Amino acid sequence: MQIDKLVVVGAGLIGASCALALRAAGAVRDVVGVGRSAANLAAARASGAVDRAFTQDAAWTGELAAADVVLVAAPVGQYASLLATIAAHAGAQTIVTDAGSTKQDVVAAARAAMGGRFARFVPGHPIAGSDRSGAAAASATLFADRSVILTPLPETDGAAVACVQQMWERCGARVGRMTPADHDRTFAAVSHLPHLLAFALVAELAARPDAPALLAQAGSGFRDFTRIAASSPEMWRDIALANGAALRTELDRYRAALAAIDAQLAAGDGAALEALFARAAAARRGWGATLPETGDGA
Amino acid sequence: MQIDKLVVVGAGLIGASCALALRAAGAVRDVVGVGRSAANLAAARASGAVDRAFTQDAAWTGELAAADVVLVAAPVGQYASLLATIAAHAGAQTIVTDAGSTKQDVVAAARAAMGGRFARFVPGHPIAGSDRSGAAAASATLFADRSVILTPLPETDGAAVACVQQMWERCGARVGRMTPADHDRTFAAVSHLPHLLAFALVAELAARPDAPALLAQAGSGFRDFTRIAASSPEMWRDIALANGAALRTELDRYRAALAAIDAQLAAGDGAALEALFARAAAARRGWGATLPETGDGA
Repeated sequence: MQIDKLVVVGAGLIGASCALALRAAGAVRDVVGVGRSAANLAAARASGAVDRAFTQDAAWTGELAAADVVLVAAPVGQYASLLATIAAHAGAQTIVTDAGSTKQDVVAAARAAMGGRFARFVPGHPIAGSDRSGAAAASATLFADRSVILTPLPETDGAAVACVQQMWERCGARVGRMTPADHDRTFAAVSHLPHLLAFALVAELAARPDAPALLAQAGSGFRDFTRIAASSPEMWRDIALANGAALRTELDRYRAALAAIDAQLAAGDGAALEALFARAAAARRGWGATLPETGDGA
Repeated sequence: MQIDKLVVVGAGLIGASCALALRAAGAVRDVVGVGRSAANLAAARASGAVDRAFTQDAAWTGELAAADVVLVAAPVGQYASLLATIAAHAGAQTIVTDAGSTKQDVVAAARAAMGGRFARFVPGHPIAGSDRSGAAAASATLFADRSVILTPLPETDGAAVACVQQMWERCGARVGRMTPADHDRTFAAVSHLPHLLAFALVAELAARPDAPALLAQAGSGFRDFTRIAASSPEMWRDIALANGAALRTELDRYRAALAAIDAQLAAGDGAALEALFARAAAARRGWGATLPETGDGA
């Protein structure tokens, strides 16, 4: 698998890390970066992730015709206009893929924007989020041993899917496949809801007059629980909107669980609380034991 | 500050780590461990944390008369009976202190159980929790640069408070003081609620038929958010019961925050969601920047 020309639209943490990983693997020759922020593009150039860079308002569409792969790694709220532009200028052989955290909305946007080119669009999601963002935080090893989920449709070109799978494998990732709906339900539960909960906790605390005194006492549990609350607000706004239905289903379940716990607290029901905590602790310890290396250190 | 004889009642992660830290500092000579589990006590002896060990049903009270300091580091649900036993056998000069995560209930239990010795009881809380527990996880550096909160009452003996403060400082900790009520309100917000929320999330997910498939897709955000859900169920049952009123106040506020977010999701109000996420991210990044060393790594 060799990519002669890669165009990364959204050369942030994910896009620039993919380019660096492919370079490190000797799997790409020419990389063009496209983005909104000149400062971020300068960081992407400085790190060697991209050879040339264009802000989105510059004349970048001429780079698309000869591209083997276009990777869209921008916030999903920008996809409709980006995919329409890409479809209008891509070459006949160009494969378009993405790194968005939601997939049903991305598929719908691609289907609407790309017309006859939709079969060569491969929806993807590398599970390598971070509270950091931007090309300056990018790393050639971001995807090592991480999972990437592809959600091809029945009409998606099989050769295009195979190419994108190999691209991520060259980055060191394990590639799996799901339907877009299964993907969105799954990540609403294990990613989108936890982010929402962490944002909610920190925003609620930070709004209090005594927030500095409270935060001065917060320890390592709070640190880890809230790490994801430092994530990109724009990216998570788009995810929350794009996957709102599945996220609200998860939130409903969670709020019902909290109501049940509140009743146990009100009743002083220590046996019920301990049983709940024990179920959680057993599940979390079991899952933690499956993590690679020392990934679950205290 | 030199402790000739220390009795640690509850020689688990906190109690054994305190003993190891004092030994490393040359601040203690003789350490006696008392606990429920013979296996845990064997680990405490093997690590050098304690010189002698007694299970709680053995004849350990004879060790109390000559003790300079008794550190109670057991789940707070056991305090009433432990403190009554300690008060009945402690020497005239013995200082009793504790490491419980809640303080109003501990003060009430000590006042009820200790009679005239209550003035030499110094309520304390080292902020060095972990999802790990037991003497096998103990470390001489657990309290290095960590905070310990003492909550002395007006009638608490000043020399006893000074001694306990020095003991924790010899362990490398920074020692602060709060009232028991302020302590419990503060830690309900920054510790007890986050633990409850993490337990609730993992228990809810783990109860689903598709839990293995969901957990197989969970990434580093989930890992960190749920790390504290592996904490001791018994310890957290006791904390939840002991600080139930403050915890329910926090839970009420949080549930109201979730209701507001659900309404924003239902309305597709991207501006409101982004503003909330941005407030959280700014607060979390600001707080993260205050952490020692690289304590907030991705």
